[in-house]
Amino acid sequence: MLIIMQPTADKTQIENVIKYVEKAGFTAHVSNGEFQTVIGCVGGKTIDKRNIELLDGVREVVKITSSYKLASRTFQHQDTIIEVKNAKFGGKYTGIMAGPCTVESEKQMEEAAEKLSALGIKTIRGGAFKPRTSPYSFQGMGEEGLKILRKVADKYDLAVISEVMEISQIPFMMKYVDILQVGARNMQNFNLLKELGEINKPVMIKRGMSATIEEWLMAAEYVLSGGNREVLLCERGIRTFETITRNTLDLSAIPVVK
Amino acid sequence: MLIIMQPTADKTQIENVIKYVEKAGFTAHVSNGEFQTVIGCVGGKTIDKRNIELLDGVREVVKITSSYKLASRTFQHQDTIIEVKNAKFGGKYTGIMAGPCTVESEKQMEEAAEKLSALGIKTIRGGAFKPRTSPYSFQGMGEEGLKILRKVADKYDLAVISEVMEISQIPFMMKYVDILQVGARNMQNFNLLKELGEINKPVMIKRGMSATIEEWLMAAEYVLSGGNREVLLCERGIRTFETITRNTLDLSAIPVVK
Amino acid sequence: MLIIMQPTADKTQIENVIKYVEKAGFTAHVSNGEFQTVIGCVGGKTIDKRNIELLDGVREVVKITSSYKLASRTFQHQDTIIEVKNAKFGGKYTGIMAGPCTVESEKQMEEAAEKLSALGIKTIRGGAFKPRTSPYSFQGMGEEGLKILRKVADKYDLAVISEVMEISQIPFMMKYVDILQVGARNMQNFNLLKELGEINKPVMIKRGMSATIEEWLMAAEYVLSGGNREVLLCERGIRTFETITRNTLDLSAIPVVK
Amino acid sequence: MLIIMQPTADKTQIENVIKYVEKAGFTAHVSNGEFQTVIGCVGGKTIDKRNIELLDGVREVVKITSSYKLASRTFQHQDTIIEVKNAKFGGKYTGIMAGPCTVESEKQMEEAAEKLSALGIKTIRGGAFKPRTSPYSFQGMGEEGLKILRKVADKYDLAVISEVMEISQIPFMMKYVDILQVGARNMQNFNLLKELGEINKPVMIKRGMSATIEEWLMAAEYVLSGGNREVLLCERGIRTFETITRNTLDLSAIPVVK
Repeated sequence: MLIIMQPTADKTQIENVIKYVEKAGFTAHVSNGEFQTVIGCVGGKTIDKRNIELLDGVREVVKITSSYKLASRTFQHQDTIIEVKNAKFGGKYTGIMAGPCTVESEKQMEEAAEKLSALGIKTIRGGAFKPRTSPYSFQGMGEEGLKILRKVADKYDLAVISEVMEISQIPFMMKYVDILQVGARNMQNFNLLKELGEINKPVMIKRGMSATIEEWLMAAEYVLSGGNREVLLCERGIRTFETITRNTLDLSAIPVVK
Repeated sequence: MLIIMQPTADKTQIENVIKYVEKAGFTAHVSNGEFQTVIGCVGGKTIDKRNIELLDGVREVVKITSSYKLASRTFQHQDTIIEVKNAKFGGKYTGIMAGPCTVESEKQMEEAAEKLSALGIKTIRGGAFKPRTSPYSFQGMGEEGLKILRKVADKYDLAVISEVMEISQIPFMMKYVDILQVGARNMQNFNLLKELGEINKPVMIKRGMSATIEEWLMAAEYVLSGGNREVLLCERGIRTFETITRNTLDLSAIPVVK
Repeated sequence: MLIIMQPTADKTQIENVIKYVEKAGFTAHVSNGEFQTVIGCVGGKTIDKRNIELLDGVREVVKITSSYKLASRTFQHQDTIIEVKNAKFGGKYTGIMAGPCTVESEKQMEEAAEKLSALGIKTIRGGAFKPRTSPYSFQGMGEEGLKILRKVADKYDLAVISEVMEISQIPFMMKYVDILQVGARNMQNFNLLKELGEINKPVMIKRGMSATIEEWLMAAEYVLSGGNREVLLCERGIRTFETITRNTLDLSAIPVVK
Repeated sequence: MLIIMQPTADKTQIENVIKYVEKAGFTAHVSNGEFQTVIGCVGGKTIDKRNIELLDGVREVVKITSSYKLASRTFQHQDTIIEVKNAKFGGKYTGIMAGPCTVESEKQMEEAAEKLSALGIKTIRGGAFKPRTSPYSFQGMGEEGLKILRKVADKYDLAVISEVMEISQIPFMMKYVDILQVGARNMQNFNLLKELGEINKPVMIKRGMSATIEEWLMAAEYVLSGGNREVLLCERGIRTFETITRNTLDLSAIPVVK
């Protein structure tokens, strides 16, 4: 963390800032520039940088170490390869997952599985519990839907991905599903993410509609820090002023995340 | 719902659309304009308008009836007044709720309650379970925090509002809290909203960071349709391209919602 | 244009709306639905739909005919192919334009032209007048830069594209440049667009940082309606809440525009 | 400017960065932290920080001195008070400007001026040249409109503000108008801003639809750096994902700018 003081900051203000950060466990390194003083801070615990920005004479606080560690490339250089049945994701593998939004009947899923299999696709998706914006819409088939998914997937030797919407569904879904998907609306449901950090199946996190790339990686950090190192990220479009398309696919997020 | 056909749509395409909506339970009223045909649809169940827009010859589908009914002024004209202890919200009353982000100690909350009371403010807030973007940040005092909140509130005769983060916390919070707050990140946690529809305490729904006003009212509809008619709406700023301020307060949302 | 009345609109309100639109030259077709009345309007001149939405009893006004005609596919079905020297754009052709942001020296441009030529690229770009966010930044080489561009382009038989920033530069640029580029900041500089409608060289319009696809097509309409039918559209990313990347490329805009 | 190196940056990479910035005229101050090296740069000319971020081993470049000087509070502490006829703006004065979007007739403006005057409002506005999104809309009365504005303003002793859309209109408008308004679409028309820096009448700059507060102040800097120290800023709403309201008024921008 770097604390950049105002050009007009006086000695007392600088000393107050140093006392503040040292009390929080940081070691302060002061560097006096021609125009302003910069205080480098090392160590210490997590601190809300806005509290420092409120101190007199402070111009700006710049965080240098990211808030995510396991989700960053700093400590892990090799690509994570995730293998689920015949499907492979990460590194040189481009995994394709396909299927209808919602499981509606066995006939529908049987047809989907057959077509995916013919196209060489190794993972089928389908929702059993659908989060609906309107309380009056169809809410999904529940466990019955998951059974159908598993049945058709096994017939065609496909992996299954489906969305988990709350903690209570986890044990239940572990029986039928190979990859648990966290929906865009749940990307910051931190209690759910923590629980998913303790299961031994891959978790795919969809980017929240208005989540920055940094917040998305932080969501991954929640799962990773629980011990589950198999996290997939899914860019699904963000919300912008353009309304002709439902979402704006943020293609450039992919190289940034990689 | 109005289905506006392309100027180039032919008879067969128009007939196919009519068949489709009638199968879904709608009655279709066709009106042939100089340039194009418009099909008005009445009745029927909830339908995803995008499925209709995919049919050949369809230009655009316009929904006329809102997806929210109880949250709209169409059927309820009078203002809802919510009374909690000495606090009143709605209509001519402007309720103020204040307090720190997170409950950290009894001393802190005692000071806050004393000051709020002196200012004539009737509701205290404070978080016991804090959703943190980073898994390494302080996560709140839990039940201990709620006890502190209740204790200081009772001393100064204040109402208590605190955030509920998941279904399992509801019975627990009902003991200490007067108004249950749904955070911005949970505004579309539909299972949580449904459960809150069945309690007999007011629910305050914060607007999601990227939620449209319509989606926000739909979240209210979830609670209202469960039978709980005491819903407060809290505009807390939306996410925009401007990053100097943390959020952009959408002031104009207030008259729209009213 | 369709005017959708409130479910509660009475006879007088409906009649007032009809009078209003007929006075504006429209023919009104009233259709009484089970829940509300819809008034279809045909003919008439351009009208600001917000004026109608202010009338008593009006719920919503839906425009059916687009505000752009020449830029739409309704009347022109075949693709526009634009040929400039050896470069072709539109239909099955994918044109690539490349080069530095700003022309800085002949040496720099000579190197660029040589490399582009070796790669088979047929169009070189480079700015002579650079719009700078800060008044203290380098503002471009002006006419000298255009001469350099033309010289190296001719040597390698390339087409030249460069940005025109204001009307007074047009006659000047016509001497050196094959395609005139309108920058994102000028996409709604309507006076400039009108002038460009009267030249006989292709115009490339970059999408404004916060322009909807509809506004972008309307900018094209300005040029087309002046008689210049050679308009290229350039999607260059829009402004969103994500700041790690400078802009968010709106890839999905391409099929929409096509 | 602070250059923050990667934790993994080696000695050669650090030396390369130092050479690069020294060549650009900066003095480099190296500070070796526990985790990474930070290079403080003083002096030098304007540099595109992205060029430095491309150098090997660089993690991030943080600009410390703002790109605007005259528009900042760093060097000017007192409020700027602008007086135009009976109207005062800035400091403790809250100026109100009102009037129709477009001047349409003398009768319309006479009525407006009379009402404003009765309400104690000292400035009238009205557009003579209207930038229209569609080429088929009414484009304003031109000079005739300005004459009307001046006439009714003089009758009621009001100041006049009207929008200037391009450089060629400036001499023309100086005859009729007291404050020249730069529209949202022209906020980054830097050539226009530069010309307005040389006139001796106040300039009001509307915030661009997707302009950050920093870009808006930079636009002010263009006018100020030309010598014209009378700049008014007008927050008029920004473009966000919410479409029920036409723009989202960014109320919090006001204290930031102040």
